[in-house]
Amino acid sequence: MRKHIVIIGGGFGGLYAARGLAGKDVDVTLIDKRNFHLFQPLLYQVATGGLSPGDIASPIRAVLADAPNIRVMQATLEEVNADARYVTADKRRFEYDALIVATGVRHHYFGQDHWERHAGGLKTIEDALRLRKRIMNAFERAEWAQSKEERCAWQRFVIVGGGPTGVELAGALAELAYQTIVRDFRKIDPLQTEIHLVEAAPDLLSAFPENLTYKARKALEKLKVHVHLSSRVTYLDDRCVRIQSEDTTRKLRARTVIWAAGVKASGVSALLQQGAGAVTDNIGRVMVDDHCRLTTQPDIYVIGDLAHFKADDGRPLPGVAPVAMQQGRYVARFLLSKETKPFRYVDKGSLAVIGRKSAIARIGSLNMSGWPAWLVWIFVHIAYLIEYDSKLKVMLQWAWNFFTRKRGARLITDI
Amino acid sequence: MRKHIVIIGGGFGGLYAARGLAGKDVDVTLIDKRNFHLFQPLLYQVATGGLSPGDIASPIRAVLADAPNIRVMQATLEEVNADARYVTADKRRFEYDALIVATGVRHHYFGQDHWERHAGGLKTIEDALRLRKRIMNAFERAEWAQSKEERCAWQRFVIVGGGPTGVELAGALAELAYQTIVRDFRKIDPLQTEIHLVEAAPDLLSAFPENLTYKARKALEKLKVHVHLSSRVTYLDDRCVRIQSEDTTRKLRARTVIWAAGVKASGVSALLQQGAGAVTDNIGRVMVDDHCRLTTQPDIYVIGDLAHFKADDGRPLPGVAPVAMQQGRYVARFLLSKETKPFRYVDKGSLAVIGRKSAIARIGSLNMSGWPAWLVWIFVHIAYLIEYDSKLKVMLQWAWNFFTRKRGARLITDI
Repeated sequence: MRKHIVIIGGGFGGLYAARGLAGKDVDVTLIDKRNFHLFQPLLYQVATGGLSPGDIASPIRAVLADAPNIRVMQATLEEVNADARYVTADKRRFEYDALIVATGVRHHYFGQDHWERHAGGLKTIEDALRLRKRIMNAFERAEWAQSKEERCAWQRFVIVGGGPTGVELAGALAELAYQTIVRDFRKIDPLQTEIHLVEAAPDLLSAFPENLTYKARKALEKLKVHVHLSSRVTYLDDRCVRIQSEDTTRKLRARTVIWAAGVKASGVSALLQQGAGAVTDNIGRVMVDDHCRLTTQPDIYVIGDLAHFKADDGRPLPGVAPVAMQQGRYVARFLLSKETKPFRYVDKGSLAVIGRKSAIARIGSLNMSGWPAWLVWIFVHIAYLIEYDSKLKVMLQWAWNFFTRKRGARLITDI
Repeated sequence: MRKHIVIIGGGFGGLYAARGLAGKDVDVTLIDKRNFHLFQPLLYQVATGGLSPGDIASPIRAVLADAPNIRVMQATLEEVNADARYVTADKRRFEYDALIVATGVRHHYFGQDHWERHAGGLKTIEDALRLRKRIMNAFERAEWAQSKEERCAWQRFVIVGGGPTGVELAGALAELAYQTIVRDFRKIDPLQTEIHLVEAAPDLLSAFPENLTYKARKALEKLKVHVHLSSRVTYLDDRCVRIQSEDTTRKLRARTVIWAAGVKASGVSALLQQGAGAVTDNIGRVMVDDHCRLTTQPDIYVIGDLAHFKADDGRPLPGVAPVAMQQGRYVARFLLSKETKPFRYVDKGSLAVIGRKSAIARIGSLNMSGWPAWLVWIFVHIAYLIEYDSKLKVMLQWAWNFFTRKRGARLITDI
């Protein structure tokens, strides 16, 4: 009988593992609580109305339609039983010979979980649509505000977290406010919008070399974003946010706070602890050996953001898409006995774009900024979109948006 | 002081009225409970995953950005006071010299309002997204059904209403099931999907000439849709539907029933009755004179689906987009004193498409079917999209979908 491999999660990790096993002499069941694969790096575009959800999401079945040995189930994982080698999802049991878990992370509010109510994150499609609604709504409320204070509060946005998500979101939001909607209102002046970006470290984009993070900060300041470094949020509610730097405390009246800061493991982490004796780190990521397996259970692999894989320098690999993709491919090869060596992440580079014309890119040891970096960013993002027709659509959509400076998907729907 | 005209509703009627007043020597306030204009004729494409909401919705502000004399408010109408000549929306009062009401219709369940819970309609973006979720979910549930009966019930779809909405939806659903997703499943065979279309009249598409409705029915049957004419739904719950023809009663076990049948006026109808003494017909549409005004209040105009405007033959004009557009333009001209004659609807024709290759069109007295009709349908729909960039996007999206037979927006999101 053929080996049965169960994959939990249809994100980058799970999907690249599945593709590596497609058409091979194994049976695969891929389980995801959604029916689509989400290209998370472009979520901020949905949040600022530049793309529609359908542009960055691909139905998992469509991606795997040509693999007769792979079946898909939309279900939520309920239990992992490593001793008996099965998982349970939507009350159905799946026995496995090997289990690959790739369910990702959620946002982490550093112990202040009640902040989540006021400052939504950006990890899922629903997050992006909720954020889009909040952003568009803020301008509507500002337009019809009854006082100057009310208007200013609605026109003030605070983004917490200076990693790629926060930086790209700040740039896109600035373009939306200062260019796209600049003629849409009669009482407010969109140019009076204030955008703040708060980062606890001394610099933005800590994964990048120093000269590039400097350029990124300059690009944001040119876009009139207020950048607060070495600053933490110490208080937050639906009307204001308090920011603490070394020696100053700033209180900002802002109705829209966006969380792009810490992450913690998905709830599946607990299932693996209970059912497989998995060991986790301080934010719930599952410790794995250098073959991406649980130290306690060699039939269980954990990859992507959920995994804590120690790189050569002792630090965990970052929670970025290329890591998940490479691990997914690796585990597939390992399971097919085509690979015996430990997993080794090849860092091909990092990219971030700040608005339409500024970008920074590190490819290998080559640092780029400006136009060349932006083109590389476009190319890589489109190349990594998982479905061919998505690639074409997004490419055309961006080209259109770029040349007309429009953001076509700026809807407020009752979602 | 300039005349102040208040327009309630940013659909075809309200938006075309606004465009007719743009840049003129009047002040206009347009109020809509949404921030976008919706191209309703293409809602069924969103429901079957062919287009994203952003492709058929245009932000109202963007459409009117170039008209400095028009301001927009996203708010819900609460009160109409015709004697004092003001309306209230979101607790704010707007005094008017003229009021144009164009808020459209909702679905009518013929006295069986509890059916709405099981058989959603297709009038709003949320309707389309809910329906999309139901359709995609039905195939997922069929795939993992535990019995043959369960599987068949999930693979059986019943559409109630044989007008353009029902017919176009049936055709699109048939293509989705029999072509697009045909390789996406492992346990079910999408080709075993059953699609039923139920119409109370002796023929579909009663607004069309007989030879064309015959062609439409043949096209649907070729797409393997089961067409039930002279048939009414007499019972409906979340598991089955009962259809009554002249002498037979049929009970179908179907988990997905879609309502594309009757309509009734929006809740605004009641506000106009209370606050302006408006007279309504049996489904709540507001009676208007031949200048689209309330007979009781000459400063209040009602246009589009909400209005009951008697045509020459004594019957009310149909609730279709071209009527609303023409009435919108007419009222604008009438208010600018550029028009004094009564409103006269020019019926330029009717179009319906049944799947990718079949369409019927009546242009004036010319009847067309097949490819020529389909091209006309594409052209007219794109031409009437209100925003230029939507036109381009939709055109490209359709061209892509057509040549690849894909439906790119088939997401199930938690909306």
